Amino acid sequence: MKLSRSFTRTLRNAPKDETARSAQYLIRAGFVNKEMAGVYDFLPLGLRTLKNIEQIIREEMNAIGAEELQMSALQNPELWEKTDRWSDQEVDIWFKTELSAGGELGLAPTHEEPITNLMKTYIKSYKDLPVFAYQFQTKFRNELRAKSGIMRTREFLMKDMYSFCADEETHNEFYHKAEEAYKRVYERVGLGDCTHQTFASGGIFAKFSHEFQTELPVGEDTIYYNDDKSIVLNEEVVLPEVLDEFGVKKEDLKSENAAEVGNIFTLKYKYSEPLGLKFDSKDGKEQTVFMGCYGIGVSRVMGVIAEKFADDKGLVWPENIAPYKYYIIAIGEAGNKIASELEKEHPETILLDDRDARVGEKFADAELMGIPYRIVISDKTIAEEKVEWADRKTGETKLLTMGELTAILQK
Amino acid sequence: MKLSRSFTRTLRNAPKDETARSAQYLIRAGFVNKEMAGVYDFLPLGLRTLKNIEQIIREEMNAIGAEELQMSALQNPELWEKTDRWSDQEVDIWFKTELSAGGELGLAPTHEEPITNLMKTYIKSYKDLPVFAYQFQTKFRNELRAKSGIMRTREFLMKDMYSFCADEETHNEFYHKAEEAYKRVYERVGLGDCTHQTFASGGIFAKFSHEFQTELPVGEDTIYYNDDKSIVLNEEVVLPEVLDEFGVKKEDLKSENAAEVGNIFTLKYKYSEPLGLKFDSKDGKEQTVFMGCYGIGVSRVMGVIAEKFADDKGLVWPENIAPYKYYIIAIGEAGNKIASELEKEHPETILLDDRDARVGEKFADAELMGIPYRIVISDKTIAEEKVEWADRKTGETKLLTMGELTAILQK
Repeated sequence: MKLSRSFTRTLRNAPKDETARSAQYLIRAGFVNKEMAGVYDFLPLGLRTLKNIEQIIREEMNAIGAEELQMSALQNPELWEKTDRWSDQEVDIWFKTELSAGGELGLAPTHEEPITNLMKTYIKSYKDLPVFAYQFQTKFRNELRAKSGIMRTREFLMKDMYSFCADEETHNEFYHKAEEAYKRVYERVGLGDCTHQTFASGGIFAKFSHEFQTELPVGEDTIYYNDDKSIVLNEEVVLPEVLDEFGVKKEDLKSENAAEVGNIFTLKYKYSEPLGLKFDSKDGKEQTVFMGCYGIGVSRVMGVIAEKFADDKGLVWPENIAPYKYYIIAIGEAGNKIASELEKEHPETILLDDRDARVGEKFADAELMGIPYRIVISDKTIAEEKVEWADRKTGETKLLTMGELTAILQK
Repeated sequence: MKLSRSFTRTLRNAPKDETARSAQYLIRAGFVNKEMAGVYDFLPLGLRTLKNIEQIIREEMNAIGAEELQMSALQNPELWEKTDRWSDQEVDIWFKTELSAGGELGLAPTHEEPITNLMKTYIKSYKDLPVFAYQFQTKFRNELRAKSGIMRTREFLMKDMYSFCADEETHNEFYHKAEEAYKRVYERVGLGDCTHQTFASGGIFAKFSHEFQTELPVGEDTIYYNDDKSIVLNEEVVLPEVLDEFGVKKEDLKSENAAEVGNIFTLKYKYSEPLGLKFDSKDGKEQTVFMGCYGIGVSRVMGVIAEKFADDKGLVWPENIAPYKYYIIAIGEAGNKIASELEKEHPETILLDDRDARVGEKFADAELMGIPYRIVISDKTIAEEKVEWADRKTGETKLLTMGELTAILQK
């Protein structure tokens, strides 16, 4: 991609009401636009990053046998009344609206009710089980406050997956597969080292649920862990009986701020029972479907990554999710010619800064945007058949031969 | 894909309140689920079809130099008040809602206002122009009635593109490119022969806009055309002065029902003026940006295709957008072994009906789902190194050698 062809450019300032550092950088680098508090647009660079994260999650969900679908945002209150989640007293983040033909509608903050209801059409017998289905879908949540940039917004992209099993055993098997798939997702998006599976409150039906928490100084949560981090607990489960169970003492636990980047939950019969999702078992008895749910806030993960790795010069994207891998700056006639040819060959991975701008400005923008590798192709180094290569994360620079560069670009 | 691994299955009946034939088939074949009137979920087969249409549109928009972004559904009334499109008297299809922090919000039925406002950040000088940007985004429209299945819904996927130019000449150049891109889209999705670019009402600022209308008996619109269809008019422009301009007489025009599948519109200064989107021209004068907009309802196009080609046995998908290209039915041990190997090699194009079901049922389901080619691999034909090939659209069947089949699958 030639930068001159893109409509965005880096901005000197973020909006004054934007307090999250990651959001300030994301706005200044042209990744997102703030529509209003808690509502953001994804501009071309931001959308590419978001889609890269989405694709990694999709591959991992497909790999454990889940099927992709896409449900509606508009919701019929009837379904949610059956589970007592329609009233604002029970769920205080609904956006509600009205049909001009008459009647109230809601904007889905999550999808347990409609997908459980949908499955009543397709699950009749034990032969139809298990079912694993997921979607990438825009959720709406009427948050009272929104001040963490794209980490907590009123409209956001979520991957939500639901499992439907005949019994607890089959459920546990899939639940374990989902745990492993989630770990692979965090590994691949670059959060592997600093993300922990934690024990969290299980609600009424299960002892624990699990969250995935990324260590982050500005995170909204606090996690507690023992020396080797083999036990990591959410704050709400740091209770005498839980500590006893794990054989740890409160005074031996350390704490750290963290941001939740996913959760997996054994729902048991919480939704299938009130909505009547039943099946005929092998021995002809009617049984209720055993459910689980598995969420990752895709735009939230992007925000956490932005926040986690940013430095005083700007964003730093892990290679797997960066909108482009290489930022090329050309100096001189021969340099420009080579750079232009390389971009033509690799338009999906190279962002060529072909703007009529000072080299210093280009260096600063490359750093603000956080593209993993900067390549400077100048007449001077070209004379020696070499180019300058810089790593955004470490700041290291080195000279590469043209042959080495070509080999890297073709990977 | 193995059909036994998918949670959907064909249904004997569609909901009683579903009157559109295409929607009845889409529901019965497991492509969509009706959440409520005018609101549908896209199930795995339907989502694949929708994504295939989306990808064709994306490629054609990228090819004319447009950049993809994604804006929010939630809208701040302030922007829409500036163009007089907030009040329900002016725009009667708003879904409106309220922030718990206080204040009214709307769900975007279209995006002229927010994208014009966004561009104020990036367009300052003639050097920043032109800009062409598009998105695939879920629109919300509070339609009073919804009875055409996924052809007219209250929540739908739309590709909306906007152009920002320094002057009318640059605008006209891009407008023409968009016309050609739209024609390529309809060609590629299989609607080329029966879709016409029509003259439609241009509103206050332009003499005409253009629509793309597909001939369709159940279409909501009526188009008027001359003998060779070189002139095709929407009903609202069949007026004495327009007929004079084109040199045709009303009595020489034929009419036909049609469904709108896209529109392109010269907006001129309609939004840039009230929202203050200006730029410094080459000679230092402040000028207003010249705008255009270009829409395709992606889910609507899918509905029109479903309606257009369906026959008394079910759906008939054009090859380019079908969720899978080949539906394989295996009979006997050797047939099953070969079918299973082929599916493993081509899981993205083959739907293997490996269910424990009667062959007659499999034939009927293949037809209902509208997969373009059905391949029957039976021990009997295998003995002669052949398979049976059937074309869903024409009904023709023939025997292929295994070598011929392999060559087709590898294309």
